[in-house]
Amino acid sequence: MYQFTLKKTDALSHARLGEIETWHGTFPTPMFMPVGTQATVKSLTPEDLVEAGAGIILANTYHLYLRPGADLIEKAGGVHRFMNWKQGMLTDSGGFQVFSLSGLRKMTDEGVLFSSHIDGSRHFFTPEKVMEIEQKLGADIAMCLDVCAPVPCTYEEAKLAVERTTAWARRCKAAHTREDQALFGIVQGNIFEDLRTRSAEEIVEMDFPGYAIGGLSVGETKDEMYRILEHMHPLLPREKARYLMGVGSPEDLVEGVYHGIDMFDCVLPTRIARHGTAFTHTGKLVVRNASCSEDFRPIDEECHCYVCRNYSRAYLRHLVKAGEILAHRLISYHNVYFLLNLMKEIREAIAGDRFLAYRAEFQEKNRPFRKN
Amino acid sequence: MYQFTLKKTDALSHARLGEIETWHGTFPTPMFMPVGTQATVKSLTPEDLVEAGAGIILANTYHLYLRPGADLIEKAGGVHRFMNWKQGMLTDSGGFQVFSLSGLRKMTDEGVLFSSHIDGSRHFFTPEKVMEIEQKLGADIAMCLDVCAPVPCTYEEAKLAVERTTAWARRCKAAHTREDQALFGIVQGNIFEDLRTRSAEEIVEMDFPGYAIGGLSVGETKDEMYRILEHMHPLLPREKARYLMGVGSPEDLVEGVYHGIDMFDCVLPTRIARHGTAFTHTGKLVVRNASCSEDFRPIDEECHCYVCRNYSRAYLRHLVKAGEILAHRLISYHNVYFLLNLMKEIREAIAGDRFLAYRAEFQEKNRPFRKN
Repeated sequence: MYQFTLKKTDALSHARLGEIETWHGTFPTPMFMPVGTQATVKSLTPEDLVEAGAGIILANTYHLYLRPGADLIEKAGGVHRFMNWKQGMLTDSGGFQVFSLSGLRKMTDEGVLFSSHIDGSRHFFTPEKVMEIEQKLGADIAMCLDVCAPVPCTYEEAKLAVERTTAWARRCKAAHTREDQALFGIVQGNIFEDLRTRSAEEIVEMDFPGYAIGGLSVGETKDEMYRILEHMHPLLPREKARYLMGVGSPEDLVEGVYHGIDMFDCVLPTRIARHGTAFTHTGKLVVRNASCSEDFRPIDEECHCYVCRNYSRAYLRHLVKAGEILAHRLISYHNVYFLLNLMKEIREAIAGDRFLAYRAEFQEKNRPFRKN
Repeated sequence: MYQFTLKKTDALSHARLGEIETWHGTFPTPMFMPVGTQATVKSLTPEDLVEAGAGIILANTYHLYLRPGADLIEKAGGVHRFMNWKQGMLTDSGGFQVFSLSGLRKMTDEGVLFSSHIDGSRHFFTPEKVMEIEQKLGADIAMCLDVCAPVPCTYEEAKLAVERTTAWARRCKAAHTREDQALFGIVQGNIFEDLRTRSAEEIVEMDFPGYAIGGLSVGETKDEMYRILEHMHPLLPREKARYLMGVGSPEDLVEGVYHGIDMFDCVLPTRIARHGTAFTHTGKLVVRNASCSEDFRPIDEECHCYVCRNYSRAYLRHLVKAGEILAHRLISYHNVYFLLNLMKEIREAIAGDRFLAYRAEFQEKNRPFRKN
């Protein structure tokens, strides 16, 4: 079961309100999906994620295929059961990690040969192989194996990536048989508008239940990304969910929604937490900094999360300086809550016909380099 | 406020049931105290600890004095507020860490000069200085600065440690003025029975509200430790709490209670969790081992904790192998719960006049090297 319902489109922007129904529950859109790379959103339990407002999370096919292996997860009853997650789940195709993490890549029309970043062992991913893995993992939403061109890349490289992405999407669709899992198509084309148009037309023609925009947030400027999003808007069918892959900074979430995006994912909230950095309503706070040493205020005085209700910047800084795991855990919790709450505020703003005002206020508060 | 109430003594052993009342609530004894070395029980929140059954935790004076400093914690409103812990708290004296962690120690009758294990800076601990620090930290129970003789040590070294421990206890008592904090005395004497007798007589003569047995579980054999506990029993006043410092393996908790101990502390549950090892009712389980790779049972089928209700050995092993923080967190939670639940079972056994049977059953199940 998978159903996207578009509930409202903002009158003054492309922002949309919707709802996605899966076998593991229903969640509203626009939504941010925390990333559980290795079948765990780093340092957090499923209960933490639900409490923070998560309705769907992402797991990485590349990582889980290499360790512990798709067969083991299938034996466990699928990735939901394996990690004790009871709500929505999406698996990526592994393509992005093959290109960014592994060594010894060799791509042909057939597939991509790569070596594991863990032990150097060799593996060959084809569209059919990835469909087999994703169906064993058993998430609610699976992604087609796509080709993300290198950044920066030439027009010819981007064109080849688009062609292979289309051919592989066709093979993925043919190989995908699991009826309780929705398979999303991915549009490539880098920052070249004509390639984006071609890719969108070819992928949409195959009629997937949802469409992802891949190959952004990989090194291009923010203006380039926003330009491509604006270009993509009329190319994707209105009644299908739109997923912007790998995007998760607060400002990009607001801009993504402005351009009509329904779903986002990013490792950012847990990654910056590891380095002692937290999101706030006025920009990032580097908890590690000496300025926090005797600051008994919460991370963000506007935030109502468990961490902001119970812990001071001074205590969190102490944990960071002392190398304590609890620092990573508490700041991760706050950061994930912060993004999920941001999406909630955005949804409320769209519902209340005040999204543009919300966006303007957000941009005013989040000017770069603002001090906390 | 501090009050120990002895409620029952077992007819067939020295095991005791009691209760300790503090400004931060009441907890039953015998009790195990999880250790929050740096004002955090590694990877766990206060809510986790309460859920696992903790009524009192320990924090380390040496660590908190060096980082973030006692003045900062006093400004935060004390260590309870600093770390968001609302129940009982005990601070050790820092003596043990000075002798085991720091460099450049030089001890005189006046105090001990040492260098920080963090940055090499020099510090001088006297009984008066330690009382000042512990009163700033503001735990419910503070410990006197004692001298723990090296292991192995000569009779003369142990004798000097006893003499200084007595002299320093007297100075601690004189310097300690905080009425909402109970100050416990510490008995030393290594494995020499006559020195234990002398130390106990001198410390008990000062009339502290509770007594700790220090200098055990530091390298002597288990038989030596149990012999000293048996020797100590008649030397300590019946109506005061007895605290065996640094002890926390399941078998030592059972034996400690057998010998009349009311309180224990140890870093063991979180330390072994870091290495992927878990307590079970039949001995330790090395979750990291390949034997767990396709084992979908919980850590311990007899355990009712959050982790055993929700996660398999296979998943936990995956987290350990993948270096995920959640492994440390989940196994720490289980291990802390396990010890606190063990103490609960022990209290129920004493209350039901079946402690010796419980102990025999425990020993039968926990034979060394039993396979899980």
